[in-house]
Amino acid sequence: MSNVIRMGIVGYGNLARGVEAAIKHQPDMELVAVFSRRSGVKTVSGVPVHAMSELESFKGKIDVMVLCGGSATDLIEQTPAVAKYFTVIDSFDTHARIGEHFANVDKVTKAAKTAAIISCGWDPGLFSLQRVFGESFLPQGKSYTFWGRGVSQGHSDAIRRIDGVADARQYTVPKEELLESIRNGQTPDVSATDGHLRDCYVVAKPGADKAKIEKEIKEMPNYFVGYETTVHFISQEELDRDHKGIPHGGFVLRSGETTEGTKHVYEFSLKLDSNPEFTGSVLVAYARGLHRLQQHGGVGCFTVFDIPPAWLSPKTDEELRAHYL
Amino acid sequence: MSNVIRMGIVGYGNLARGVEAAIKHQPDMELVAVFSRRSGVKTVSGVPVHAMSELESFKGKIDVMVLCGGSATDLIEQTPAVAKYFTVIDSFDTHARIGEHFANVDKVTKAAKTAAIISCGWDPGLFSLQRVFGESFLPQGKSYTFWGRGVSQGHSDAIRRIDGVADARQYTVPKEELLESIRNGQTPDVSATDGHLRDCYVVAKPGADKAKIEKEIKEMPNYFVGYETTVHFISQEELDRDHKGIPHGGFVLRSGETTEGTKHVYEFSLKLDSNPEFTGSVLVAYARGLHRLQQHGGVGCFTVFDIPPAWLSPKTDEELRAHYL
Repeated sequence: MSNVIRMGIVGYGNLARGVEAAIKHQPDMELVAVFSRRSGVKTVSGVPVHAMSELESFKGKIDVMVLCGGSATDLIEQTPAVAKYFTVIDSFDTHARIGEHFANVDKVTKAAKTAAIISCGWDPGLFSLQRVFGESFLPQGKSYTFWGRGVSQGHSDAIRRIDGVADARQYTVPKEELLESIRNGQTPDVSATDGHLRDCYVVAKPGADKAKIEKEIKEMPNYFVGYETTVHFISQEELDRDHKGIPHGGFVLRSGETTEGTKHVYEFSLKLDSNPEFTGSVLVAYARGLHRLQQHGGVGCFTVFDIPPAWLSPKTDEELRAHYL
Repeated sequence: MSNVIRMGIVGYGNLARGVEAAIKHQPDMELVAVFSRRSGVKTVSGVPVHAMSELESFKGKIDVMVLCGGSATDLIEQTPAVAKYFTVIDSFDTHARIGEHFANVDKVTKAAKTAAIISCGWDPGLFSLQRVFGESFLPQGKSYTFWGRGVSQGHSDAIRRIDGVADARQYTVPKEELLESIRNGQTPDVSATDGHLRDCYVVAKPGADKAKIEKEIKEMPNYFVGYETTVHFISQEELDRDHKGIPHGGFVLRSGETTEGTKHVYEFSLKLDSNPEFTGSVLVAYARGLHRLQQHGGVGCFTVFDIPPAWLSPKTDEELRAHYL
């Protein structure tokens, strides 16, 4: 392809570095600039970092801006603000506010004649897609989503706030026996609490009461109550050595019948060494899809549900039909 | 939805009955008619069967015609012929002729201002989609497709043609140890022959030389040579009792790295009690997608790669964003 897609990144944390790495693997993309609120930021690839105040001056020089704001709170402001000048994509994941965020971004993009994809990544994102696929092909049935084995940043932070805790890492782990029963055609009722274990690795401060910490973790409302939770006390060295990665993943299953007693199991899974690097890679593929949508006249706010799969690939339609169909 | 999609089926074998059953689960579809070359055909649902010669008279009364011709040879003629009058979908699966079939159908549909999806089902179809997704999200990596455990009609027929064989059923079985190694991040080179076992259940005629039959199976060129093949001799009663289903399924995996040493495994699998019923169900969901594509002005020949996932579902965009994203 001769048309290079000119990319920009707003924010420069783990996710942004994942996007930066992903762009390097794309034959049809070029990273033009990174924008950050912080000063003195240096990128892995050496791409220049600009202040947020310079953003507008890049209008017309960047085709798709990937928004890597630190939190959902950032994005709810940032996505509509940047969409005034650029076609944008974000990974907004506060489920309860997706409707509001969509409406805001849709309004701005339609006025500015730009386009946007919100809530893109693997969940929301690829898992959402597979939930729609599964139910479309097996309308009579039951859907399941399991997360993990993976690090939950929110739960790790919650443990760190407990008195006497120096550091912590929490893994969400799907219950293997439930997955197996669904694969074998059973359709159990599974709540998030039933479906997952919470596995905690905790560094206690010197002299801290470990029994008390363990009790506080297991009884923490919203985060741990109701879950089968295990707590392992380890040293800071062990935590740094064995638990520094940000792995994640999970499973989407649809179990359904087409006629009485004729069962089918549709399963999708991801096993990721790095949650932000894979999310970055998904954002970059959908940035291509968004750019093509825009070339086809697309204006407004979209989601993964709206993008034809062919547009995610740098390959031509002929190549896809010849080698992938 | 108030707009009912009016469906027709051409041909009435196993796949057509799968399509008929699938339409019953759809809130927005109605099966208008079945067309068959044979006389005296009765449908499971009681929908009327018409002669092929009446097909043209249904123009304007059917929105999407699902072509369930008995073989790829049928479809290569039938799809362009029917596409002169109707928007059509087929499950054409002769890989080497997809390019030719696409060109034929594209020409007819563009002239007639109809639309078509060819080569839709689970492979080609859903597996094709997942191959494109996997490679788009993990451009540096390796893709794998495994089929089974499932009945191969072609291999079963080949065994039945051997002298002394009364009946037979052949299962293609993916090698579990290879699947496991890929899930664990290894990227072995796997050919179709390496990746699968061939498991044969054979009914010998009275007095037949079983050792000779087994040798003929294992040495049959194109079908069995090079494969790890097991042959079980059973009675006709056992075959009828234990092997009358048409189960199938398989796996698509993509193993890739985003940065040096950071690995991800993307996996999709299907476990199907009935190959034709599930294929029918996929065709029906894509018939909806095709109908919507046409409502958006789509004319010509398309594949699963071209259809936005949202269009497969009877749900509205708002519902999808609220409950599936």
